[in-house]
Amino acid sequence: MIELFYRCAMKIINVTSTFQNEFIDITEKIQQVVSSAGAIENGYCMLFVPHTTAGVTINENADPSVKADILMMLNSLIPLEAGYRHIEGNSAAHVKSTLVGVSQLVAIEHNRLILGTWQGIFFCEFDGPRNRKVNVHLFNSQIVR
Amino acid sequence: MIELFYRCAMKIINVTSTFQNEFIDITEKIQQVVSSAGAIENGYCMLFVPHTTAGVTINENADPSVKADILMMLNSLIPLEAGYRHIEGNSAAHVKSTLVGVSQLVAIEHNRLILGTWQGIFFCEFDGPRNRKVNVHLFNSQIVR
Amino acid sequence: MIELFYRCAMKIINVTSTFQNEFIDITEKIQQVVSSAGAIENGYCMLFVPHTTAGVTINENADPSVKADILMMLNSLIPLEAGYRHIEGNSAAHVKSTLVGVSQLVAIEHNRLILGTWQGIFFCEFDGPRNRKVNVHLFNSQIVR
Repeated sequence: MIELFYRCAMKIINVTSTFQNEFIDITEKIQQVVSSAGAIENGYCMLFVPHTTAGVTINENADPSVKADILMMLNSLIPLEAGYRHIEGNSAAHVKSTLVGVSQLVAIEHNRLILGTWQGIFFCEFDGPRNRKVNVHLFNSQIVR
Repeated sequence: MIELFYRCAMKIINVTSTFQNEFIDITEKIQQVVSSAGAIENGYCMLFVPHTTAGVTINENADPSVKADILMMLNSLIPLEAGYRHIEGNSAAHVKSTLVGVSQLVAIEHNRLILGTWQGIFFCEFDGPRNRKVNVHLFNSQIVR
Repeated sequence: MIELFYRCAMKIINVTSTFQNEFIDITEKIQQVVSSAGAIENGYCMLFVPHTTAGVTINENADPSVKADILMMLNSLIPLEAGYRHIEGNSAAHVKSTLVGVSQLVAIEHNRLILGTWQGIFFCEFDGPRNRKVNVHLFNSQIVR
């Protein structure tokens, strides 16, 4: 018996930010994509942010002050003004995007994202407010033989 | 002839940290999971840390002063006390987790992790000492036709 | 109808850096590997840097001042000299490698890397000038039934 993997869905979800810098909990949105994709016994979810001034991270979603503290520290380390050359004025957002990263990979079991007890998935806005997208690629396994 | 991928194992390894901030070389532990999973000609290993105050990185494991220097710089950039709101007092650890990341993907050939000459895999403890877990997902390929 | 995934290529590309710290746009080099791998309807590209003083990131490749600003901020945050213990003198490069990361995962459709409008893939040199390598793993899908 082996479990072969196949692609079962590629969905794009929309995220609307309200602030210049903001972590938006998208765990339930991603879970809804997983839940509505049909029966996934074992699988994987790949998230990809197609933007250069945003990112995606996995961190605590129990106490909202955690995301506030992470944003405060990122803003303190990477100031909005620092003699940047890029004339659009959003170089700090580009730096944050490279440090946080634009993709995440999460396992799925029985149609549930396998996250730690305190983990949630956050879209990281660093140059909002804007309308953004997150590409969600799902893989399922097929038991053969 | 094509090589289809299938899941051959999902193991959880335990890691015990001794210090508040510590890089623990888990290369051999992960390699043992790979070695004991049966014959893997070509495959992949996905590591996922289900914690919000820890991470996983790949860096030099020849000179132990490299991991000491990385930790020193992280501690210097992200101080333990900085007017954080989160009352548990471990906000610095959450920031470090988001910057370092909670997952890694490594190729496997002939049952060996494909790492560069000087690369090792480190569990990154940022809020220890604690008992921690790392999820190890292995994929093998099956040649068909 | 399901789409099974199989490995269609593992190529190593060479990158030569000219400066100590440098972002080198490798988008076209990676796209060439994808284009020459045969017909890939739907697939994935995994990039892995087998070095400990380099990385790979996805960010804006329209205005070259963006990569200059990211490098300036990384150099400002992580100074070359900071009382490091590692005697090779390149600890700052090791820190940057851990913060930026050594791998990226990008989707492929109809033989094109699926990147956002402004996104490019950059090899991140932090201890050059050097001759470097990037491992490129490609997966294609096979429609069955």
